[in-house]
Amino acid sequence: MDFEEKTLKRELIFDGHIIKVVVDDVQLPNDLGQAKRELVFHNGAVAVLAVTPQDKIVLVKQFRKAIEDVSYEIPAGKLEQGEAKEKKEAAARELEEETGYQGDLEELYDFYTSIGFCNEKITLFLANNLIKVETPRPQDEDEVISLLELTYKECMDLVAQGKIVDAKTITALQYYGLHLGGDR
Amino acid sequence: MDFEEKTLKRELIFDGHIIKVVVDDVQLPNDLGQAKRELVFHNGAVAVLAVTPQDKIVLVKQFRKAIEDVSYEIPAGKLEQGEAKEKKEAAARELEEETGYQGDLEELYDFYTSIGFCNEKITLFLANNLIKVETPRPQDEDEVISLLELTYKECMDLVAQGKIVDAKTITALQYYGLHLGGDR
Repeated sequence: MDFEEKTLKRELIFDGHIIKVVVDDVQLPNDLGQAKRELVFHNGAVAVLAVTPQDKIVLVKQFRKAIEDVSYEIPAGKLEQGEAKEKKEAAARELEEETGYQGDLEELYDFYTSIGFCNEKITLFLANNLIKVETPRPQDEDEVISLLELTYKECMDLVAQGKIVDAKTITALQYYGLHLGGDR
Repeated sequence: MDFEEKTLKRELIFDGHIIKVVVDDVQLPNDLGQAKRELVFHNGAVAVLAVTPQDKIVLVKQFRKAIEDVSYEIPAGKLEQGEAKEKKEAAARELEEETGYQGDLEELYDFYTSIGFCNEKITLFLANNLIKVETPRPQDEDEVISLLELTYKECMDLVAQGKIVDAKTITALQYYGLHLGGDR
């Protein structure tokens, strides 16, 4: 069976700072005719499951305009153009900017966040041996963030209460539960 | 600390069939000035962790134009406008259309897939007691899909090999590992 959808025509809708939007006319495989695909392109991002020496998980609270609400999430940040090869450096930067921590970073795995229409790929890192930096890199100018350090159980209670609603954060918490001792 | 970003102006960029794109000028809290937010709105989706009586997990293989590759995912589908209240029916429909199975559906939890710029929310269901339907609802006209039924271990091998790269699928697999017997 053939799966590929060949692009017949691509219309550029929007070329922004964060996302690029196109509409493709595609040729479906197996003589199924044509279809339209609305697509969002994104440079990708890194996210960090940061675990303190006391086995607390570091979360940041911030406002998310897309959902018009605050959200509790693991530290994360977009990759700049051309930064795909230096993901570990980007993860270290975001961790320090958002939390003031430095640590030993280990790459876990990648996932596409919204594969049906978007190519945003997040690379998840684990950060251990955290230490507070005396003069951390400053936060982004347009970010208002507060920090929390919670046990795994406290985090999963927030998931159950619908207060942690962010996919990358739930994925990272599940990783902790599966591999780093979910009973704590 | 105040977190809210008030909308000063919203520009409609694109009003498509699947996504709507806007750019907001926002007033940052705490006298931080203004910023722009590129936002993607989406009706939301349902996804189904379907487990056969033999403890196999049902996956669908399909082409994803956003990443120009095939992807192995749990069955899922977009909600239609106004369908938010009937998520369970939508999950049953997508499961039957994509896999030919009916089953007992239990809602697990919701998550936002790309909370930094998009309001797409996926509601994850567990489907048990699966039975094959003799004449299932037909697949969408523009979907080319093939089915796999794999053990949890086989699925996690695909994650480790980078062949399962879809966030909702990894989240569902981790749920299985945490709650439904990850040793099988």
